[in-house]
Amino acid sequence: MSALARLLRPRSVAVIGASADASKMTGRPVGYLQRHGFPGDIWPVNPRAETIAGLPCFPDVASLPGAPDAAIVLLGPERAEAAVRDLAARGCGAAIVLASGYGEANAEGAARQEALKRAAGPMRLLGPNTIGLVNLTDGIMLSATGALEVGDLPAGAISVASQSGGILGALLSRAADRGIGFAKLVSTGNEADLDSSDLIAELVEDEATRVIAVYMEGLRRPEAFRAAARRAAELGKPIVVYKVGRSESGARAATSHTGALAGADRVYDALFRQSGVIRAESFNDLLDIPAALAHGRRAAGNRVAILTSTGGAGTLLADNCGLAGIEVPPPDAETTQRLATLLDEDQATIGRNPVDVTLAGLRPDLFRGAITALLDSPLYDAVAVVIGSSALAAPDIVAGAIVACQATSAKPILAYVSPHAPHLVRLLNGKGIAAFATPESCPTVLRALRAPVLPAVAEGVVVDASALAGLPAGNLNEAESKALFARFGLPVTREAVAPDAAAAQAAAEAMGGEVVLKILSRAIAHKSELGGVKLGLTPAEIPAACAEMLARVAAAGAPAPEGFLVQERLRGGVEMILGFHRDPQLGPVLLLGAGGVAAELWEDTALRLLPLTRADAQAMLEELKSARLLRGFRGAPPADVPALLDAIMGFAAMVGAAGERLVEAEINPLFVLPEGQGVRAVDGLVVLR
Amino acid sequence: MSALARLLRPRSVAVIGASADASKMTGRPVGYLQRHGFPGDIWPVNPRAETIAGLPCFPDVASLPGAPDAAIVLLGPERAEAAVRDLAARGCGAAIVLASGYGEANAEGAARQEALKRAAGPMRLLGPNTIGLVNLTDGIMLSATGALEVGDLPAGAISVASQSGGILGALLSRAADRGIGFAKLVSTGNEADLDSSDLIAELVEDEATRVIAVYMEGLRRPEAFRAAARRAAELGKPIVVYKVGRSESGARAATSHTGALAGADRVYDALFRQSGVIRAESFNDLLDIPAALAHGRRAAGNRVAILTSTGGAGTLLADNCGLAGIEVPPPDAETTQRLATLLDEDQATIGRNPVDVTLAGLRPDLFRGAITALLDSPLYDAVAVVIGSSALAAPDIVAGAIVACQATSAKPILAYVSPHAPHLVRLLNGKGIAAFATPESCPTVLRALRAPVLPAVAEGVVVDASALAGLPAGNLNEAESKALFARFGLPVTREAVAPDAAAAQAAAEAMGGEVVLKILSRAIAHKSELGGVKLGLTPAEIPAACAEMLARVAAAGAPAPEGFLVQERLRGGVEMILGFHRDPQLGPVLLLGAGGVAAELWEDTALRLLPLTRADAQAMLEELKSARLLRGFRGAPPADVPALLDAIMGFAAMVGAAGERLVEAEINPLFVLPEGQGVRAVDGLVVLR
Repeated sequence: MSALARLLRPRSVAVIGASADASKMTGRPVGYLQRHGFPGDIWPVNPRAETIAGLPCFPDVASLPGAPDAAIVLLGPERAEAAVRDLAARGCGAAIVLASGYGEANAEGAARQEALKRAAGPMRLLGPNTIGLVNLTDGIMLSATGALEVGDLPAGAISVASQSGGILGALLSRAADRGIGFAKLVSTGNEADLDSSDLIAELVEDEATRVIAVYMEGLRRPEAFRAAARRAAELGKPIVVYKVGRSESGARAATSHTGALAGADRVYDALFRQSGVIRAESFNDLLDIPAALAHGRRAAGNRVAILTSTGGAGTLLADNCGLAGIEVPPPDAETTQRLATLLDEDQATIGRNPVDVTLAGLRPDLFRGAITALLDSPLYDAVAVVIGSSALAAPDIVAGAIVACQATSAKPILAYVSPHAPHLVRLLNGKGIAAFATPESCPTVLRALRAPVLPAVAEGVVVDASALAGLPAGNLNEAESKALFARFGLPVTREAVAPDAAAAQAAAEAMGGEVVLKILSRAIAHKSELGGVKLGLTPAEIPAACAEMLARVAAAGAPAPEGFLVQERLRGGVEMILGFHRDPQLGPVLLLGAGGVAAELWEDTALRLLPLTRADAQAMLEELKSARLLRGFRGAPPADVPALLDAIMGFAAMVGAAGERLVEAEINPLFVLPEGQGVRAVDGLVVLR
Repeated sequence: MSALARLLRPRSVAVIGASADASKMTGRPVGYLQRHGFPGDIWPVNPRAETIAGLPCFPDVASLPGAPDAAIVLLGPERAEAAVRDLAARGCGAAIVLASGYGEANAEGAARQEALKRAAGPMRLLGPNTIGLVNLTDGIMLSATGALEVGDLPAGAISVASQSGGILGALLSRAADRGIGFAKLVSTGNEADLDSSDLIAELVEDEATRVIAVYMEGLRRPEAFRAAARRAAELGKPIVVYKVGRSESGARAATSHTGALAGADRVYDALFRQSGVIRAESFNDLLDIPAALAHGRRAAGNRVAILTSTGGAGTLLADNCGLAGIEVPPPDAETTQRLATLLDEDQATIGRNPVDVTLAGLRPDLFRGAITALLDSPLYDAVAVVIGSSALAAPDIVAGAIVACQATSAKPILAYVSPHAPHLVRLLNGKGIAAFATPESCPTVLRALRAPVLPAVAEGVVVDASALAGLPAGNLNEAESKALFARFGLPVTREAVAPDAAAAQAAAEAMGGEVVLKILSRAIAHKSELGGVKLGLTPAEIPAACAEMLARVAAAGAPAPEGFLVQERLRGGVEMILGFHRDPQLGPVLLLGAGGVAAELWEDTALRLLPLTRADAQAMLEELKSARLLRGFRGAPPADVPALLDAIMGFAAMVGAAGERLVEAEINPLFVLPEGQGVRAVDGLVVLR
């Protein structure tokens, strides 16, 4: 048995620092273990007590009758370290340290956390600054959360990994109110050892777990997370993440709360997309989406039938669905006729969606018939039923009809409860019907119920030591940068490096026609702002232009340039930007966007982590509004999209091969020419270290 | 007493079609009137009953002892019309018709609704297809909503106008659960007579009402709504609107639900902005925002201190605040010191925001001291307190401390309740503290608590019959369109109309330098696509260009053009679009946006209804991302923004003066030149009828 398995399903639990006073926080864990029916051994450790809650109490860890699978350490930070050392020596599987005052507090606490980690040695550690672990599948409570005071905690198929203990407690009590059951809940706290990715990987393999809900402040090991997500996708177990640190205030607060460093939130977004992870946008969604997914049904498409007995709430739901891109099409002719016959209604009235059965339609047989007719229609992928005030008096009839209908179809049924009626929400969730009190939840959940896309597995990056051989640290100039791009198959503009004006003029003559002249300098990253780019020059105009550029560079106090670049002039392409940087937390990031001024002004960019697949590249493109320009906007010819995808993959290969020396790389603009004509890197910059 | 006043506060109520069977829908209203303590006369009308609920029952309207102030008509649509006619004859103030099967159903129902309206004559009518009216201030229930079965409905300062009766009931029961009290709630249903704007105007004047919450499907009289909103702003009574029909599905559903036509949602957005109305984005907000506003406190700015005893929920709240643009700055030095002294904590730990007092800080004196320190700090405009699980055991202590602190300061305190604890939410709301269970509500409410901006009163539009004199119906050509713009002070490009190529060449010579040549044709709205625009021509190139244009026009089968337009060539301006159209529901709309391709590709546009003020024009500009281009983007010179504002106002004046004949007008592009150089309409189109 692995240490993590011992932690999740221990046969024996030591409670270090247990109190005989059940009203104290330190008195809770033994009580919770007993009350929720833990079948294994409970070993309280406390030198000042003979028995606790009827159990013999041990004076220290050494006296325990065996090596506990798990231990809860309830001591303060000054004594926890010794207890952890003793537990490790005793062969304990994993220790849970609840105390705070470690890395989240200050530098002193961070040092204390390091010492704690050292004391644990090979023993696994959960925390510190954690509320512990709740295993509802097996009735094992390794936690002090007050949420366990709630009597009725239904077991279910959702497991939770939360960096925050308070949020774990909030989810537990909120879910209980809604009749949503959990399998396991773990708070990882400061993650001195075990982190979210460890727990997610373990929960993915847990038989009772069908969906994993994650509350995330920051990710310490993105690669481990990606691997766990890949495994979850293979097993068809969705992961739903609610991540804070989306704003600067939130990132600062998250950092000080559990010491997790925050990467840029947009990069997390990219990570989730690439990993097939569902991102919960509101805190509410972190319960609603997993609850719906736990029922195991999926929607084949995004068309929903709304059945209501109260017009207003049906309208409200339809509007929220439409706003979120869920289709609400009117029923087909056959379904309309079936409904009209059943409900004895005008076909014109009933041929709408929402289907309003009015109060008369709430007779159980009619209600059931209407739901079945809608489920049977090939037009719909799911049915959403609105529960109005009229259902409050007879909750079982309504719920019974929905449950009976659900059994006849593979399609999901959702329920929106319009008045305040928590008992109905509870009743329905308990019977396997996803029920909500917020109209926004319905489309959110429907989107999540779409069959998940298995994340493509990108080939690992192989660093090629020769890729950057001979190149200096610092900024490369444009010619050097583009030579590097060209080595990786990226087409660049025809161009010639000229050390002086005469050579530049000769190069222009050789090139023919009008050319582009640029200053060539490692020191000048933004050439245009220094007048270092001139378009449409004839060879005769070159010497004067060179002189003017040199004069402006000198006037600006910039170092003398390496020379000039004479370049063919391109026209008629769509300008894009292709860039690379390293996120301090999540690692190498690729950026694709509208080029030129647009990238900055319109923020039309898409991000992905490396490594990436061609499908990822395609998805990046589809995220961009400027993708319309590539498809041939306002009569312009369609652009060479396959060549653009080749360029993205080539750029990614270059970044991978370059390894850690590559700090930044950017092609801006990358001209995407009309179909069949390829792309050209027109300007670019590489920064090495 | 006006008819509406009689309806809202009747001294006598006739209940037509009342049933002695209290379990029936028709049995409810008399029971509700009695149970909630209606002090006036209740006159049940039913020819088949002697008494109802202990009251003498009247066989018909004619037998009533007086003219009732209000009547509830519980009859089906076939008999309601006669009852309404009788009530009108008897001098009743207003009748409430609950039946459905009218305009919302089909054409037959629409005709029935017309007949009902005619039967009412001068008597006011609420409905049909309404759930009625609830006056909690005076305990007068003129409704059959099942939500009135709830025993404890607190009276408060929020009034509701809802087109949907079901939503009214949902709000009533949801608010009761949260401890939020109402003054009056009215469902206007199909609005055969009284509509939302009538009710809002009346509720604005109601003494007990401090905030108005509106559930809107569509607005029948936008001008009346604007007037009511203006009056509400004068009285400092905020209006909060949740409007459906934001999506196509929603608009379709809304239309079929109460027959309200849906205008374009973005135009509603413009209307709300111009009217100083707060738009609720989620359904939840429609309770949360009014509840917070009803307490009467406002926030002077958008900086909030978050006080928490549970780190995770504090982080969650800070993140949601930051995401919504609410600032969460760390405390100033003085406040930090005060907190550190009080809580005996490390200043480094306490100098953060959220301020985490941990469990130790929950001692009432410390907790109170911490809140007061934060309220006292000039850095903060509001304080948000996080209530964790630990507070569940002693709700009164926590609530008591918050209430006591609030009394010492004019700043608002909000409470976020992290675990499921409806009793705490209820307790706090009941004591005048806005309390929420959703972290997103906190920033939403804080934004709404910013002191409201009084909507500027735009001068009415005066139609000038001479404005379009002599102009034909249909599309005007570019020269005619720009001549009209110029008449209203809008600067246009220097240009000359030329009937043929020779005249065009002569015009180009007279103009000097390179010119722009355009085909001039009322029939061709999109000149560029037909090759009808050429830039940078010398006079010598004009004849060939003219010939080519004529050939292309002929080849495309378009009618022969009126001639050519020879135009100065402008450079270096920022391209904008300025447009006008008529929304079928809300009327004349002005559009400002990024010009050229950008308007379509990036959807960077702002809308306002006419009439508009210069402040509106300024606000439109600030809504645009492309406004950055005008401020001098990437080293470009700042553009002439005052001239742009002049142009917007001139364009608005033109639209106003033109009156109903003007169908559409557009300047695209409008060049905004560098500061001091003004703007130029470079191309434009006017459509008349």
